[in-house]
Formats: sequence, C-alpha cells, structure tokens
Amino acid sequence: MQAQEVVTLVRQGCRRLPSERVPLESALGRVLREPVRALEDHPAFDRSAVDGYAIRLDDPGTRFEVVDEIRAGDWKPRSLRPGQTVRIATGGAIPCEGLQVAMKEDVVLEGSAIRLVRRETERNIRFRGADARQGQVLVEAGAVLQPGTLALLASAGHTQPLVTRLPRVVHATTGNELVPPDQTPSEGRIRDCNSALVRAFLGLWGIPVEQRRLPEDESAVRDAIRPAADHADLLLISGGASVGDHDFTRRLLEELGYAILVSKTSTRPGKPLIVAARGEAVAMGLPGNPLAHFVCLNLFVRAALDALTGRPAEPLFERGVLDAALAGDANARETFWPARCRRLGRTASLTPLRWLNSGDITSLATANALIRVPGGSGRIPAGAEVDFAPAVGAA
Amino acid sequence: MQAQEVVTLVRQGCRRLPSERVPLESALGRVLREPVRALEDHPAFDRSAVDGYAIRLDDPGTRFEVVDEIRAGDWKPRSLRPGQTVRIATGGAIPCEGLQVAMKEDVVLEGSAIRLVRRETERNIRFRGADARQGQVLVEAGAVLQPGTLALLASAGHTQPLVTRLPRVVHATTGNELVPPDQTPSEGRIRDCNSALVRAFLGLWGIPVEQRRLPEDESAVRDAIRPAADHADLLLISGGASVGDHDFTRRLLEELGYAILVSKTSTRPGKPLIVAARGEAVAMGLPGNPLAHFVCLNLFVRAALDALTGRPAEPLFERGVLDAALAGDANARETFWPARCRRLGRTASLTPLRWLNSGDITSLATANALIRVPGGSGRIPAGAEVDFAPAVGAA
Repeated sequence: MQAQEVVTLVRQGCRRLPSERVPLESALGRVLREPVRALEDHPAFDRSAVDGYAIRLDDPGTRFEVVDEIRAGDWKPRSLRPGQTVRIATGGAIPCEGLQVAMKEDVVLEGSAIRLVRRETERNIRFRGADARQGQVLVEAGAVLQPGTLALLASAGHTQPLVTRLPRVVHATTGNELVPPDQTPSEGRIRDCNSALVRAFLGLWGIPVEQRRLPEDESAVRDAIRPAADHADLLLISGGASVGDHDFTRRLLEELGYAILVSKTSTRPGKPLIVAARGEAVAMGLPGNPLAHFVCLNLFVRAALDALTGRPAEPLFERGVLDAALAGDANARETFWPARCRRLGRTASLTPLRWLNSGDITSLATANALIRVPGGSGRIPAGAEVDFAPAVGAA
Repeated sequence: MQAQEVVTLVRQGCRRLPSERVPLESALGRVLREPVRALEDHPAFDRSAVDGYAIRLDDPGTRFEVVDEIRAGDWKPRSLRPGQTVRIATGGAIPCEGLQVAMKEDVVLEGSAIRLVRRETERNIRFRGADARQGQVLVEAGAVLQPGTLALLASAGHTQPLVTRLPRVVHATTGNELVPPDQTPSEGRIRDCNSALVRAFLGLWGIPVEQRRLPEDESAVRDAIRPAADHADLLLISGGASVGDHDFTRRLLEELGYAILVSKTSTRPGKPLIVAARGEAVAMGLPGNPLAHFVCLNLFVRAALDALTGRPAEPLFERGVLDAALAGDANARETFWPARCRRLGRTASLTPLRWLNSGDITSLATANALIRVPGGSGRIPAGAEVDFAPAVGAA
C-alpha cells in the first residue's frame, strides 16, 4: 500500500471533532466551523482615504474657509456651504453627502483658509459598505485561522469564533532499550527521541500531548494505555509495531476494541505502520525508528490531524527538482528520502541528504522535505523532477 | 525606497540577542547558537538492522542451534561457535565481531534450531559510528530547531540547547477611533484589529507581546511608552505614522533616543513606515491600515525577528505564476497585492484577491501571499511570472 492510499484511508477513518468557541487569543491555527458574516457594513460609514480637506463636489472654487476639523474617531455630521471646507484626517468620518477630499499635498494654507492648487477627480472617500456589506460572508467555514484572518474577525467584532476543538492526544513510547534523553544510556540502550519528536510535531498545531514511556511489556502497556485510550481522540504508540515476536501494538489495539484499517504499508521507512479506529477515536502504531517516525508524522499523522480538525484535503505532494543525483537501490518499496528543500525563484530545489540506513537520523538536522522515490527506481539524476512532501515546520 | 532595501536596512539595524539554555520542550522554532556535537558514536554499539538470527560470517552452514535471545535494550556480549545462532531483534546489540544477521523471513524454525533457506551478502548490522562519530557536528549553529532537529538533539543527549533568547516585544496601538474588538463602535469609530494581528503574528514564533491601546494623545503615548521602551528589544507602534499633523511616532522615537533608520518607504500599502534603533533595541512605526500592517509584518517585522534571533537571511521573494490578470494602475510605487498562493505540482499559482482601496481588509480572509507589483506596472496578464512573498502562517 502506497503512502497516498494510506493517507486516504486515514482521512476516511477520522471523523471531525466537535466545535467550541474560543477567544481570538487562542484561535491561531484553529479551523473555523461556521461562516463568519459582517455584522455591519465595512466600512460602517463613509471615511476619508487621505489626510486632506473635504469640499463640495459642486463647488468649483479654489479658495475655502476651514470651518471645522475631523480627526479619526470624531463624529461631526454637518453640511458645507460653497467656499467652506473641513480639515479631515485619514479614516475620519465624512460629515455629509456630496463631498470629495482634496489631499493636503494639493493645498496651500493661507491663514484660516486653503487654496487648492490641483483638483483631482478622485473623491478619496472609502464609502460605507465598499469592502463588505452587512450579512456578507467574510470568512468561510473550514478556514484555518491565520494572523490575517484573526485581524478580520477582530475588525468585524467576532471575538469568540466557533472552531474545531483540539484533539486530545495520548502518546506512548514502548521499548526496553529506551532511556530519557537526559540520561546516559547503559550499554545496549539508546535515548528516547521519538517522544521529543512527537511532542514538537504536535506543538506546531498547538496541540498538547500526554506522553508515557513504557517498557516493552504487554501487560504494563495494556494497563497504561487502556484508561488513556478512553479519552484520547488520537492514540499514538511508538515502537512495538514490527511484525517480530515482541510487538503487540496490533493485538493491543484489537483488544481495546479498535478496528484495524491499515496494518502494513509498503513505504520505506515506516513499513510497520498500524492505523485503527474505534468509534470517533483513531490510533496509530508507529515504527520505532525515528526517521520512520518523521515520515509517518509528516504524511499520516498530519492527515489524521487535518481530518480530525476538519481541514480541507490538500495534495500530498508538490513537484521539485533534484539538485544532486539520488542513488536509487531499485528497492521495490516506495521510499521517502530525507531532503533539504530551498525555494529558489520559481523552483523548489531538493538536496537529498545522507541516509545510508533506515536507522540513521543525522539527516534530521536539516531535513525539511521528503522526496518520494517510486518503488523500483534506480538512480535518479540531478535535474530530474520529483514528488516531494514538505515537512511541517515552525516559523 | 523599495521593500528589499528596507529589509536590508532593518537587518543592519538589528543586533542578535543574547543566548540562553532552554529545555527541549521550549525549544521549538528557536535558533541554535552553538554547533551541537555527538557525545558518543551514533549508534554507540553495533546494532541489528532487522529482526533475525545472528550467525558467524565464516560459518557456511545452513542449520544453527539457537543459543540465546537478544532483545532491544539487552546487553549480552558473547562469542558464537560454528553452528550456533542468537535470535536478535531490530536494534538489539550484536554480541561479538564477525557476525551477520539473517532476516527471520529467510529462516525456518525447527524446534530449538533454525534452517537458513536464503543467505544474503548483506550483514544487516548498523555499525557503531556509521551515522555519526563522537565529536562530529550534528546540528550547525544557526539552525532553526524543528521537530526533527529536536529529535536529533534528544537522541544525542543535548537536552538544554543554547538558543537565542526570544525578543521582548512591546506593541502600542494608537488612535482615537479605536475600540476593543468586543465592543460595538460608536459612530465614527472602528474596532482595533491590529492588536490581534500583531499578537497572532508574533505567536507564530512563540513570542509573547505586551500590548497597549492608547488614545492619539502625544503625552499619554509618551508616558506609556517610555518605561516600556526601556525593556523592549522590539517596540512596535501602530498608527500615528502618517505625515499628517496627528502623527508623532517619529518625534516620539527621537525623543526616546532612537535614531531613525527608515522614515518613509515607497511601498504600497505601508508607506509611512518608520524604522529606528537605539543601542540594541529596534522600534518600528507601522501605518494604521490593517493591510499595510499585514505587509509590514510579513516583510519588515519578519526581517527584524530573523535578525534579532540570528536566522540566516533568506531571499525575500519567490517566483510564481498569476492565475488571473492583475489590473495594474501604473502607480509609481512598488505595490504588494494580497493573493492566495497554491502550490500546484511544480508551480506556485497566485490568485490576486479583491483589493480596491488600501483600507480594504476582506482579502485578509484568504491572503497567504503578497505579490510584488513593480512601480509603474500596468495590467499584468494571467500566466505572467511574478515575485511574491509568502505570508508566515500557522500549521
């Protein structure tokens, strides 16, 4: 099963989470669940687009007495007689109908009057409703709330947007060989780095995660995971997913009542992936190797997060150009090769990183993309166009 | 002055902030300030790359007695005699020199023995130091810590990386017309949306911000900003930057001892931008219009954050293709037009968004890119290649 098929199955296995209202301060990156409409016209009143002097459109004169001043925030409706003007700031409320605003650059001050040295045809007014009409949809449901969208919501007075709630994620790392990263491993052991990887990856979405590091002992893992599974929207289990005798993720998930959707992919690294569903909850068993984790997170867990939060499906791959040859080993399996992507002008340029063995992780220092090498590919020359998936990253 | 020049001046005006050590949990998106080296070889011992059976390379037999089992995390050094094998799990420590691991798929179990049905030349061992040697640089100084980098640091035992400290940012919004977003503006007034925009934009970097909303009153603003300026690495002042009588940002910054680096740009929107520096602190006066804010944040504040945190300079623009014509008005000023960018295959496809007036903000609903329209451009046809700056966004 290729990555694209797994992503499709993951999406199908996930149901969108319920919604909640959150303040704008907490809404960055969240998915809007209802269309947001303008509560009033935008702008709500005719506003000056420039710093200048409001005069009557029908007044052909060149000299005007300054009879008032309107700053932004003032509300001073009034009529103007021919020969009169009101000084007005950008954003100030136009005092009546039938005016235009002469830019201050087109005016010479003469005591309490002005002389117009150039008369534009442009009225320099942002008319009420020109940007949006009351009731008009400003932001569509499904939008991912970005800084600009949040500004628009603030401007329109929508300070408690309805968004998908964040998934509750539980992550268990299993393996007798693992020690916490701040310990020096005794012989035969290694530091657990998948916990840091999963935590940071979910951190990109602002999703907190409850994490446990467990020995590879079936009953200990079962006891630890059973209560967690009951409140997890997404259960991630690292390690223990290979088909060897020590693995039990599949058995465990089945015992917990999950239906297995994917039990094996043909992708490399990341073959022993398990995807399972139970009601509205989803579980994934991820192979212990950190690069496989990196691939599974960026392709499959990302698809689950998109589906759980209700983001629209985006194409999995972009096209880029190799800036160095990729030594293919004609492996029958679809391979995701760690790469450094740079966007140079019009082209995404991809440098394949050193990756000799599926357990190697030094490529994670700079990898920000995964090149898709189709199964059976031999050497791919520099300059060739390839599919790649950008890795999700922090600003 | 064009945007590229402003960015260069902003970068030159910012000094890199000091460093601090933070736990991995807090390091996402931070900039590493020292090269991180391997404390030991990676892997630290010869490990099996597969689930299988370790046998002597010099043993030509096909039937082997299983004399031990090595799971990941075990440390069981021992020698093997011809005809003997040790069952070993992926990641298990190879017990002695001169072995290879037969994959379990190539083996038939016969009681307490195995029969080898296929013998690979591949040894299936990840040798000590194959991925990295002790002392080797794993991550270079200047790297932005992403989930993969954090996994590598965890794996190498670097749990307190040295990173640039986050800038202390103070943001003041000035303007008599502004009310908080949760209030209905009285006539002539509008809701403040720049505070939400700035807060969310800085949130993408995990940077908290101290915000004030101030009336456009010179002494009130001075009194509020003076103490804040003393501890701010980056002071942002919204509004009050136009050249009209009501603006005083420039005067205020000069009074506070800042030297003005940029007092006017020719870009649109965003013309009345002020950039100033005082010792190691930087201040920017941003035009009040929200789309100008969006442009200034994504081009100029971003450049300041990059420089303050010590990120390498990246090209400001990528190249993309217009999927609809852009009606140029032959404005002499370089214009940044809000657009929706989609990466379709190899091409960044850009849809210009509706933007009639510089005060219009409904394009912020979907804008994720800014198309650079060179000064004096007339209509740019669909299919034309253009410069664009992607907007920074949340996952």
